[in-house]
Order: sequence, then structure tokens, then C-alpha cells
Amino acid sequence: MKKAQKILSESKKYRIDVGLSNLAAVKGEGCYLIDVDGKKYLDFHSNVSTNNIGYGNPEVKEVVREYSKKGIYKVDGTLTILEEALVLAKKLSKHLPKNLRKSFFVNSGAEAVENAMKLAYLKKGPLGGVSVKGAFHGRTIGVLSYTSSKAIQKKFFPVLPHHELDFCGEKGYCNFRELEDLISRELTPAFVIIECVQGEGGYRPLSKEFVKYLRKITKEHDIAFIIDEVQAGMGRTGKWWAFEHYNVVPDIMATGKSLQVGATIAGKKYDMAKQERGALGSTWGGGHVIDLAVGAKVIEIIEKKNLVKNAERMGDYMLKHFKEIQLKYPRKIIDVRGKGLMIGVEIDSVKRRKKIIDGAFKNGLLLLGCGEKTIRIAPPLIIDGETADKGIEMIEKLIKKY
Amino acid sequence: MKKAQKILSESKKYRIDVGLSNLAAVKGEGCYLIDVDGKKYLDFHSNVSTNNIGYGNPEVKEVVREYSKKGIYKVDGTLTILEEALVLAKKLSKHLPKNLRKSFFVNSGAEAVENAMKLAYLKKGPLGGVSVKGAFHGRTIGVLSYTSSKAIQKKFFPVLPHHELDFCGEKGYCNFRELEDLISRELTPAFVIIECVQGEGGYRPLSKEFVKYLRKITKEHDIAFIIDEVQAGMGRTGKWWAFEHYNVVPDIMATGKSLQVGATIAGKKYDMAKQERGALGSTWGGGHVIDLAVGAKVIEIIEKKNLVKNAERMGDYMLKHFKEIQLKYPRKIIDVRGKGLMIGVEIDSVKRRKKIIDGAFKNGLLLLGCGEKTIRIAPPLIIDGETADKGIEMIEKLIKKY
Repeated sequence: MKKAQKILSESKKYRIDVGLSNLAAVKGEGCYLIDVDGKKYLDFHSNVSTNNIGYGNPEVKEVVREYSKKGIYKVDGTLTILEEALVLAKKLSKHLPKNLRKSFFVNSGAEAVENAMKLAYLKKGPLGGVSVKGAFHGRTIGVLSYTSSKAIQKKFFPVLPHHELDFCGEKGYCNFRELEDLISRELTPAFVIIECVQGEGGYRPLSKEFVKYLRKITKEHDIAFIIDEVQAGMGRTGKWWAFEHYNVVPDIMATGKSLQVGATIAGKKYDMAKQERGALGSTWGGGHVIDLAVGAKVIEIIEKKNLVKNAERMGDYMLKHFKEIQLKYPRKIIDVRGKGLMIGVEIDSVKRRKKIIDGAFKNGLLLLGCGEKTIRIAPPLIIDGETADKGIEMIEKLIKKY
Repeated sequence: MKKAQKILSESKKYRIDVGLSNLAAVKGEGCYLIDVDGKKYLDFHSNVSTNNIGYGNPEVKEVVREYSKKGIYKVDGTLTILEEALVLAKKLSKHLPKNLRKSFFVNSGAEAVENAMKLAYLKKGPLGGVSVKGAFHGRTIGVLSYTSSKAIQKKFFPVLPHHELDFCGEKGYCNFRELEDLISRELTPAFVIIECVQGEGGYRPLSKEFVKYLRKITKEHDIAFIIDEVQAGMGRTGKWWAFEHYNVVPDIMATGKSLQVGATIAGKKYDMAKQERGALGSTWGGGHVIDLAVGAKVIEIIEKKNLVKNAERMGDYMLKHFKEIQLKYPRKIIDVRGKGLMIGVEIDSVKRRKKIIDGAFKNGLLLLGCGEKTIRIAPPLIIDGETADKGIEMIEKLIKKY
């Protein structure tokens, strides 16, 4: 038996099986993960966009090595202030509009969105909130109420009062009255939260007009406008933040994944935690020395290597190719869409998608679904033409075959 | 200006101020943290019990150094299986009863409790849950509903349907009918959740009879009994888990802090995630290579150094001393209680407590409040008599002075 299978079967005895895959990885290099048996996998979803700079970066290794000497590993980031948290907050503010200057660090994207909502509640009280159908804002129960990408993710769990607006994408019908109707009928919500490009919901960009409409109405009614950049941020879409494609600025932002920590970011207006001391908190928030230092290094590497530009360039390149493949197999591929290196390739059936993803895994290519029957194409932002071609060609072969 | 003050004042510009302290630490050694200006602080709360083995442990440093070579830092722990997660899950199971064999790793204690609740919901549906007044189960909105240690922590935020049982401690009146009355009046809850020793709520142990009563009634009515060991676990109370003092076994357990990752632990009965694939998930859960490896090393160090035993021994020693101090200042200290190195010293007023904690900080001793006016005594489990005496003497002087 291969070592990978042994680890997996033992894992199923000692770990709660929430869908454990067959990939027992031990190391990574560039766009590739390598498993315990030495097999190489091209990671076409960057581990759900948590590794935008790829694997095995020597500067990241050096940061970890340096910090191994420190003698502090994880502390409470409120009671013990780390310079690393300050450095990271400053680096983030450099890439954000002026009204998004202050960061609160937490442990995950879910916690980052939870705290974005909390900042809105602090100003408005415990009112309902508004999200968009198909959204994914995390798994903790507070943000799960605003999540509706997949029924299974929430059907067993209680929910908070909330409202879901109809999805309005780049194509199809849009309702430009729904939010106002809601406001006139009911209490004004505490916040409206969106992902500019829905992630788990299917790599679906919202329409520009719709996002602008939401920004306009939330401004008029003084409702907190929260943008969730957990998956789409950190250069993924060919801009630092997906909202830059939309010419809007949120009141509160949440990010995570490639940043290596969760971050809730706000400006003066929603910086209410000081007046209400004790309302927000997180034991490890801003207290994981190495995560903070690696996060800062990730930003540096994205800057230095011009990875945002590369995401735009390679995104255009890959989008074009997938559109060409769609022209060849119009029955099997029903849509290709996206921004930068956040491309959704929508297959005509769940069954065919499964065959393609399973086939890719056997051939050493990691693909991951999103939405009902879409494949997410989100390789590390360091990807070059040759590596992209390799993955694209393999996908084309699989589409031809199945 | 000292460097620590500079970091703090700049942090307040770039970080949301949720109560940032004055301690800008750069390294740690044993029971001490050292700030950027070289000042040493004896940490009498182990950074809220996240550092039970103390700081600067050479074996932990070595683990981090080794992992700096790996080239995988944080990945999705479901899509990319790490042997480190298996090793940690196995190590945990060794110290747990047979029905608590399977771990689900997440990013924080809050997420661990969220997922413990989710396992209960998976079996019972989205019913209400029951907690105990004064409990702290975390800051995310789902678990915050069951938290009531401080009003400020939840007063601005929405809550889920829930019920809070009266607190029943080692002294005072207890209601041994409340849970049954609730069950006969309303729907059976999905779960009952307790901390055997309340943390944030004031380092208050529940009464043995009460915990046994809850276990008995939950068993009779097939309600999930969840024990939150986030703060009290990992040897803190002189046993591996606080529930061992109570001769009960929970159906589901949550832990975190000193483990370096959050963990939801359950047995066969509540291992429902496989049947309902997609119901649970966490991007980084089981995917933070170094946290998992350090967590396993922490367990090893606790075993090797007999720190659970030391927590019991040193806990008895310190409890005795604080009780003696109470006899000298019975007006100022109104209660001394606890288990192992989780000791609550209750002061007669919030004002006096503040003076003592602030005075201690100036003298290089880190103290932290809990409950309304208690000081938590929770030094690293490696503490020796001499170091304990140093802190105790300083506290006695401050109590005398203020």
C-alpha cells in the first residue's frame, strides 16, 4: 500500500471525516504539491486560494526559520502587542483606500467576516443583515446565516434573521429595486454584505451596476457596506482587491486565506471597539507571530514579483483559452467567466464535472468544484504560460474524453 | 520614548483598538515574557492559558526550525491531508476516553465550540441549546449566544434561541430541577454545554453534583452533552481535562489555546459529518502544518515533564498560600478557589482589582481579571516554587498597599 493511502485510512480513524481527500502532501514547490510517495500535483486552485504566492518560497522559509529562534509562538494579540501585527496592518493599509486603515486580526476568514458584521452591529444594534443569494461568507454560525452557496452547509443549523437579495451577474435579469423595497417595508438592515466575485458560489462576478447600486443605497440609508475579500482579495482577480474592478469602496472589509490570518478592516466611522471596550476580542487575533510575519512577507512578494499584474495577464490568457475550449465543446462547457486568475468553467452536469475532477487528480492536476457544477481555475499567481498550458491541455483532454 | 510605547501608539493608528495593552513583547523564556526594551514580565496567566508549557521551549523552537524547510505553510486540511494532523489526533486520543476518539481541527477555540454545536445540530436539527450563566464559549456569534460572562461581549449582537441555567458552584444554592423543567415545558434542546471550571466567567468550578446531574439528564433524554475545555484543558487544572475531576465523560468536547489549534472531538455517535458530506468544513482546519506539529510537541512536553502532576502540586501550593493571604486580608479578598493552576482570587471591588493588576504590571508581573472582580492565577504549568513565591509575594504586597 502506498504511504498516502495509509495516512488517509488512519486519518479516517482519528479525524472526523468532513470529506478528506486522497492527497497526503509533504512539501511544495512553486505551483506544485508533492505527496508522501513523491507524486507531483499541479495545484490549480492554490488550496482554495490560500497560497497565492505558490509553495516553497525561499523567503517564506527564511521568515519561518528566523522566527523559530524567537521563543514566542502564539500569544494573545491584545494583551501582548506584537510589532509583526503593526507591520502587517501598515502593509495592508498601503494597498487600501484611506477609509480602510485599521485592521483587526483574527484566526480565519470566517472570524474576519464575523467581526465585520460585529462592527456594523456595534453602530446599528442587532438588526438583520442582507447578503446575496449564492454567497459564501464562512462556516461559523453567525456568517453561515448569510451564506447560501450550498444547502448542505447550513440546512441543519439555526440561522439569524437575514435577507438574501437575488443574484445579479454580468448576464441575465437583475432587480434594482429589491434593497429599497426591503428598506421601505422593514427595518433598515445593519449591513449589506457581498463578495464582488462569488467564490464557493461558483466564481461568479456580480454585475458592476448592481454593486454600484448597493453602494449608493447603503450610503443613502447609512447602512454598513461590507465587502468579503477572503477568497477574491490579495491579487487573485488581477487587482489587489476585487472591489477595485467596481469603482466602489466598502465601509468594512474582510480578508483572509492568502494573507495567512483573518483581517477585519475598517475606517474611523466603524472603529467603535474602543468606545465599547470588550465588545470585540480574539485570543490569538494579532498574536500568531509567524502567521503575521509570513502574511507580511506574502504582501512583499506579491509587490516585488508584480503578481497582481501577472494575475491579470495570465488570467486574460487562460480565460481566452477556456473560451476557445468552450467553442469546441459548447454542449459540455456552458459558461466561462471570471476576473484575473479567478475563472469559473461551468460544466453542463455534476456528473461530468466529477469525472473531469477525478480524472485530473489521477493525472496529477488538482481541480476543485464550486457552485453547482463549475470548476474553479485559480492557480498560484506566480504561474507562467508553460505551466498554465500544461493544466489547460490536460483539462481539454478530459473534457474531450468525458 | 521607549520602543514599547512607540509600537503601541503606532498600533493604535493601524490596528482596531479592542483593548491593546502596553506590553510589546519580543521574546519569551520559561514563565517570562521580555519586551522590546528588555523588561522582563512574569506571566501569571500564560497569555490566557495559551502557553501552558511556557515560552522559549527549545524543542518547540526546533520543531519550527525543522518545518521552515518544508515549503508548505498553511493549506486546506481537508483537500490536502497532513500527517501532522493525524499525529496530533492520535496523541489527543491517547489522553481521552474511548468515546472521544475523533478530532476535527479548526483555527480557534471559538470555532471548536461552533463545530461541537454543529455536531449536535447534525443529529438533532437546529433546536435551541442550553448553557450555564457566566459561561464563556467564544466570540463568534453562534457560540456568543451561549456566552454570558460579560454583558459587553454580546449586548450589541443578535443571538440564537438558547437557555441559560443558573450557575451552581461548590458553595451556595443550586437548582437541580431546572433542566428537567425546561425539557418538560419546551422542546428538548439539541445540547447542553458547560465549562467544568468557568474561565472568563471568574475561574469558578461547577459543583460536582450539578455536573453529574446534567450528565444524567442529558443521557436520559439523549441530548448531546458538550464540555468546553478550551481554557481548562491541556493539564491546566491538574488533570488532562477538567471533566476528569467530575467523573463524567462528555459526548463532544472542544479544546484549543495551549493545543495551538482548535479541536472538536467526538465519538461514533456524533461522527455525522461523513453522512452529511459538506455540512462541516474549515479552510485551514487541520492544514496549518506548524501549529499542528507544535501542538503535538506541546502534548509530548506535558507528558515528558509530568506537567499535569506539577499543575496539581503547584496548584495546591499556590491555593494554600492565597488562602493564607485571604485570612490576613479577609475584607479585601472575598474568595479563593480553583483547581490545579486555575485559581481565582476574588477581590472585594473592581477598583481595588484594577489597582492590583496595574501595580503588578509596573512591577513586571502580568495579571489578568476574570468574572466581575476576580484575578486569574494561571501561570505556565512549568512553574516552580521559587517563581510562584515571587509572584505571590508581589501580589500580597499590592493587596496590603491598596
